[in-house]
Amino acid sequence: MDIQYNSWLTTFKQPFGAVKKGKTIDFTLFVDSFEEIQSVSLVVKKQQERIEIDELPMILFEENKYKCHYQVTKGSGLYLYCFKIKAVNQEGHAFHLFYGQSEFGGEGCQYITEADVSWYQLTCYSEEDNAPEWYQKACFYQIFPDRLFNGNPSKQINSPKKNTMIYGDESDLPFYIKDETGDIKRWDFYGGNLAGIKNKIPYFKELGITALYLNPIFEANSNHRYDTNDYFNIDPVLGTKEEFKELVETLHENNIKIILDGVFSHVGRNSRYFNYSGEYGEHLGAYQNPESKYFSWFNFFNYPDEYKSWWGIADLPQINKHETSFQEFIYGGGKSVLSYWSTYDIDGWRLDVADELPNFFLKGIRERINAYENQVLIGEVWEDASNKVAYGESKEYASHPVLHGVMNYPVRDQILALVNEQKPIVDVVKEMVTIKENYPRYFYYNALNNIGTHDTARIYTECGESYQKVALAFALLFMMPGVPCVYYGDEVGLAGEEDPDNRRFYPWKSPNTTLKKVVQSWTKLRESHLSLTEGEAHFLYNTRNDLFAIYRCVEEEESLCVFNFNDYEKDYLASDWYCDELNQFEVARMLQRFDIPKLNISKQHYLFLVKSKKSK
Amino acid sequence: MDIQYNSWLTTFKQPFGAVKKGKTIDFTLFVDSFEEIQSVSLVVKKQQERIEIDELPMILFEENKYKCHYQVTKGSGLYLYCFKIKAVNQEGHAFHLFYGQSEFGGEGCQYITEADVSWYQLTCYSEEDNAPEWYQKACFYQIFPDRLFNGNPSKQINSPKKNTMIYGDESDLPFYIKDETGDIKRWDFYGGNLAGIKNKIPYFKELGITALYLNPIFEANSNHRYDTNDYFNIDPVLGTKEEFKELVETLHENNIKIILDGVFSHVGRNSRYFNYSGEYGEHLGAYQNPESKYFSWFNFFNYPDEYKSWWGIADLPQINKHETSFQEFIYGGGKSVLSYWSTYDIDGWRLDVADELPNFFLKGIRERINAYENQVLIGEVWEDASNKVAYGESKEYASHPVLHGVMNYPVRDQILALVNEQKPIVDVVKEMVTIKENYPRYFYYNALNNIGTHDTARIYTECGESYQKVALAFALLFMMPGVPCVYYGDEVGLAGEEDPDNRRFYPWKSPNTTLKKVVQSWTKLRESHLSLTEGEAHFLYNTRNDLFAIYRCVEEEESLCVFNFNDYEKDYLASDWYCDELNQFEVARMLQRFDIPKLNISKQHYLFLVKSKKSK
Repeated sequence: MDIQYNSWLTTFKQPFGAVKKGKTIDFTLFVDSFEEIQSVSLVVKKQQERIEIDELPMILFEENKYKCHYQVTKGSGLYLYCFKIKAVNQEGHAFHLFYGQSEFGGEGCQYITEADVSWYQLTCYSEEDNAPEWYQKACFYQIFPDRLFNGNPSKQINSPKKNTMIYGDESDLPFYIKDETGDIKRWDFYGGNLAGIKNKIPYFKELGITALYLNPIFEANSNHRYDTNDYFNIDPVLGTKEEFKELVETLHENNIKIILDGVFSHVGRNSRYFNYSGEYGEHLGAYQNPESKYFSWFNFFNYPDEYKSWWGIADLPQINKHETSFQEFIYGGGKSVLSYWSTYDIDGWRLDVADELPNFFLKGIRERINAYENQVLIGEVWEDASNKVAYGESKEYASHPVLHGVMNYPVRDQILALVNEQKPIVDVVKEMVTIKENYPRYFYYNALNNIGTHDTARIYTECGESYQKVALAFALLFMMPGVPCVYYGDEVGLAGEEDPDNRRFYPWKSPNTTLKKVVQSWTKLRESHLSLTEGEAHFLYNTRNDLFAIYRCVEEEESLCVFNFNDYEKDYLASDWYCDELNQFEVARMLQRFDIPKLNISKQHYLFLVKSKKSK
Repeated sequence: MDIQYNSWLTTFKQPFGAVKKGKTIDFTLFVDSFEEIQSVSLVVKKQQERIEIDELPMILFEENKYKCHYQVTKGSGLYLYCFKIKAVNQEGHAFHLFYGQSEFGGEGCQYITEADVSWYQLTCYSEEDNAPEWYQKACFYQIFPDRLFNGNPSKQINSPKKNTMIYGDESDLPFYIKDETGDIKRWDFYGGNLAGIKNKIPYFKELGITALYLNPIFEANSNHRYDTNDYFNIDPVLGTKEEFKELVETLHENNIKIILDGVFSHVGRNSRYFNYSGEYGEHLGAYQNPESKYFSWFNFFNYPDEYKSWWGIADLPQINKHETSFQEFIYGGGKSVLSYWSTYDIDGWRLDVADELPNFFLKGIRERINAYENQVLIGEVWEDASNKVAYGESKEYASHPVLHGVMNYPVRDQILALVNEQKPIVDVVKEMVTIKENYPRYFYYNALNNIGTHDTARIYTECGESYQKVALAFALLFMMPGVPCVYYGDEVGLAGEEDPDNRRFYPWKSPNTTLKKVVQSWTKLRESHLSLTEGEAHFLYNTRNDLFAIYRCVEEEESLCVFNFNDYEKDYLASDWYCDELNQFEVARMLQRFDIPKLNISKQHYLFLVKSKKSK
């Protein structure tokens, strides 16, 4: 039996991708068979609601072509669908056949039994949840605050912590100082601080950065500060609240936004709330005193030494998010953490380990955020955020207006696979289109894209220390829908394996300025070309599968970036391209408009073209 | 057979202790026997010259009393002696008996065979080698330069080294940062410096310190700087040559002397001379270039990676001291290390691992030192320096005028044994008198006494953190002949186990001021009482063996310090004392002069008495 369906082509499914609740979708299936087809139907269910299955008959429209309209009426969430064909074979026996997706969306495959079917995903969102406009247009810069710049004129460290070590030289490589059992013995610091960030505002401007994402800055023991000790204080090593206020003000005067890292899943063992070591007074914390007002925040198995902690790390006691006093503390009105820092006029939050925050808690955070104008809320999610299940909860970040967007780690994998030629281009394109299909448009464009963070190896290292490849990676980052975020130092070729090596100090004495200019050129392009921020996106590959391209267009203009990841120069032929979401005719017409029938692209180079539609 | 001899009593041997070459010694032996004594003789040999043995007949003087005069004519060095008695027993058989020392000097015991005899030691020195007068009167203070005080107003570190770590807080405990193989991964610094030492001159004055001994200050990799990288430069972390010049000048203006730590046995692997890592240019060092002018300084087994190093520590390539270019480099005229730093007007040197420097090399150093006025030369020797044999060489520091004196570690052991009551007082006294006997008087008084250094656990920790016991230890230190040296921080009760814990930063914020006052009072006593610097010394213990005393006297005055180390108060009775070097009559008369027949001494207290002889 020959069945044809491709969720990415409007010939088969309209509209493309995710839909708003209540919308109607047109499905078309082609079935060509020697057997006698008795019926064709669309089978739809909601994720984790296996009982309620809709089976919708598809009507034979013309030869082999079955159609139906399906209206999404069961509210927002993740819908799954496949097709069911009932037939009778030449021996007169009746049988069923199913058609579901294969590894990715797009073209699927046949299944004999229903249990084996890999269902197509249909994301249904409740409402368009556009991030603030500044965010959508932004060029982000992620800063690990200890590692950017020490703004003190004499380079002394602000209030160094007891039992910490400070690097002798900023060019020293970071490492962990561990004891015999592998625990951190002393935390290591370079002494970057808020004054240093403020000092570098001209640099951000020069680079074209319009928003900062800071790794945690609240009082903590470690250099990364994910072990919060006090949510209401700036870590003294970084500076004072006054300095933070000045930083935000000066950033805003320079039209640069700033978002903070919200770490609400756990706290530091030595925090004011848990107070293991008694540094915050003996009676305050849950560890010291079961009468503490923070006692109910934690889950003690055996008081006080056995308690639930994040991934079993004793240093990070986990918070019981069902505790209303903690909810009030984080996102209540008036005196909550979110309220307090909004008075400093920050522009939003990146939520650490968002998956570990229950949906109701995320919702609570978002509601508080909504009370402030123009704050953005981005979650740390490492996978496709539309279908993630964590701790038994379907997260459905892409269906409900909770997070504006998520950190886009899949795009990093795709970019690396391309520049390092780890996978055929067609395969990477499938991954890209799958995300594009699964995410509502607004959510896709709200993604905070990266090619490296404090939790991954550095792009320069991932690219085998080839500046050329890093330049390709940046071009891809800026061509992708979503908001690009540059991890400090990546723009000047800073090297680094995984943590802690990916947290070296910014190399102010030996930056790679060629690479910096590449990043500068991209931030300028992004600022001046609407197609790069708002434009529809298509991913293209040529027949020889040795060139890749991203096409972006808005009404006024269209842009195209063609990539040659290979070691040899390649010929670009406008007539020679495929796109998984468009038919050949559409692709050919699109490329013809750029008026470049043939071109040579150097090895490991890209070519950016832009065309104003009005001028045509 | 009843034989009586005691090398400590003038009844038996005159004079007491070591003698100058050419001197004549009177020996007296009492032999009482039922057997027939045929002859009694004194047998003398020089250490390591077993062949030439003198046997001198002793003449029966009066009943049981045999005497002889022995003139030391074989040059300076270590002489050994015992007594040989030839007798015939009641059955008419002739036999020999020997009388030598037992564990210590003083009373000895009989031996049947000559091979078993433990010989008495007789030190014979070539000339009196008094240290400069300032040295003999000094109160020393030993400083580990990284750990005393940071003299920079903003507390920043001078030129921190690459790949080092700096403590976050001065009160943090020191530790080693090691890699998986146990090697030092990064050296740790607090940032004490020369400016800090200069800054603390008022403190030294207040404490009564008149001389400083600094651990190494030349350019090196480590925080202890025993791995010299450049003998002609001050480590930039500590400051500049200009600052060192200022420090010496300011110390001298304040009548404080300064001696440096001379580390000439080995250099640092990364030194200008070996240059393992190439930091000093690629062609200069022996490791990088066999044509290097320093190549002959080292012993390579397999060039360049296998070479002789100090105690097998690859980081410390050992120097071939027979290499004349190295001798010239260290102690030659004009441009040598010793010449160079003498232009900074320093007051002497403490020689690191003196035992590992061959005698000819030590002699070369001393000859250079002699060219400068008033410089002192002290050696690091851990044992009784009069009879030490190292690397097959009899060191005989006490016989030849090479080192003025040595660091007195045995006195530390004796003091700890007393205050912690680890041994009976009589046993400790025996150890004390043995050193007194073995060392020439000048050498004994030139000893640099300590109760702790950078190479031992802290006195406060050794005393079980009892300030009272530390006070007793300081009193003993200042009562002993020799020059007291206070290890920075010991005077304010700084704690610390062995290296690296014994190198904590000076606790400027939490000094024990009671203890400091004790030390202050002793430096004042030493300054104002000649008996404590020049005085003859006697060690006393009472009949119950529960009180100890040190007596010191010069012509003008005599002083006595009585110690009760016990947990209970004790009665002092003037009539109740012994001294191993004096007879009972002498002891009784000595104590009667203090006019205190009976007194109560509190538990773990001491009582210092001083009596002017003129006023009597």
